[in-house]
Amino acid sequence: MLIQEKINVITQGRGTYEVTNDVQRIVKNTDIEMGLCHVFVHHTSASLMLCENADPSVRADLEQFMSRLAPDSDTAYSHNNEGADDMPAHIRTVLTQTGLTIPVKNGRCMLGTWQGVYLWEHKARGNQRSLTITVYN
Amino acid sequence: MLIQEKINVITQGRGTYEVTNDVQRIVKNTDIEMGLCHVFVHHTSASLMLCENADPSVRADLEQFMSRLAPDSDTAYSHNNEGADDMPAHIRTVLTQTGLTIPVKNGRCMLGTWQGVYLWEHKARGNQRSLTITVYN
Amino acid sequence: MLIQEKINVITQGRGTYEVTNDVQRIVKNTDIEMGLCHVFVHHTSASLMLCENADPSVRADLEQFMSRLAPDSDTAYSHNNEGADDMPAHIRTVLTQTGLTIPVKNGRCMLGTWQGVYLWEHKARGNQRSLTITVYN
Repeated sequence: MLIQEKINVITQGRGTYEVTNDVQRIVKNTDIEMGLCHVFVHHTSASLMLCENADPSVRADLEQFMSRLAPDSDTAYSHNNEGADDMPAHIRTVLTQTGLTIPVKNGRCMLGTWQGVYLWEHKARGNQRSLTITVYN
Repeated sequence: MLIQEKINVITQGRGTYEVTNDVQRIVKNTDIEMGLCHVFVHHTSASLMLCENADPSVRADLEQFMSRLAPDSDTAYSHNNEGADDMPAHIRTVLTQTGLTIPVKNGRCMLGTWQGVYLWEHKARGNQRSLTITVYN
Repeated sequence: MLIQEKINVITQGRGTYEVTNDVQRIVKNTDIEMGLCHVFVHHTSASLMLCENADPSVRADLEQFMSRLAPDSDTAYSHNNEGADDMPAHIRTVLTQTGLTIPVKNGRCMLGTWQGVYLWEHKARGNQRSLTITVYN
């Protein structure tokens, strides 16, 4: 069995948006007990990650790390059609994940105690982001 | 259903090589309407990415970013059997993707408007690179 | 068919631990000839990678690269509940992989000649790490 569902996430600019509950709800509705769940983001300036979900300062520090690694103000970029955050957004996307596959057991994504599923918006401005979730066995 | 096909890509040295059409053709030939497509590269000095496919300067800037992040001239590397690009190639591979999974819908990889599938050759010299594409539902 | 198995890996602190043989043994036991194998790590301070398996200096250099990219001593981190290696462990995890999908052919993970599957422990102290392996077709 394979079930596919599309969801949209509205972001309010750069930062992380937890989608764990959305993904778990879709898995539950499929009635698949054991299998896999694939989450995909249809963009090149937003990405996905599994991250520590207890202390928000982890995600603030990740944001800060990325801001230093691929700074918006870098004059080395030749591609800046959409502004100073254009190339940094593509770099951050390439360094993280466009898709995540998670084992499903007992009708749920079998995440570790501290693992949450996050959409990471890399653009300064908010966007509507499309995700496709596929659950299968 | 699960169908697996191997393709080779000849590279002419460091840079990105679009394989979106090869992948879409394989998906189309399977007659799978809804499912997933997995692309895998059998190497540790070349990788895969989903990247903006409209403006080539994005990929030039990514190349430049990686050249600064893991410079060929770095004397800190102890492993350089195959030359100055040996460790940088492994580092770039580990920081990007060896496999990509993409949702299939209506008989096609359901990529976002700006998403292209790229093989990223990290060695200075060209190589024959093997990819395995698996389409399933 | 889809078969799921959990294994634990005991680490002795920061470094890489090869799990290729464990994964190949599980694939072999499923009797699946052609399909895919997914490896998942249930943690946010340890990750997975496919890496050159011939010369251990490659992995030593990767460790050194990560130590410079996300140094333990960085005072910019606000999250350090579990010590100086806390945020660096999360950063290294986000920059590498929590899950790997590998094609299965002839009853084996069809890895490239130099590809090994490694668990990467990012914490200074050893831990028991849980992995879930799913083999399917």
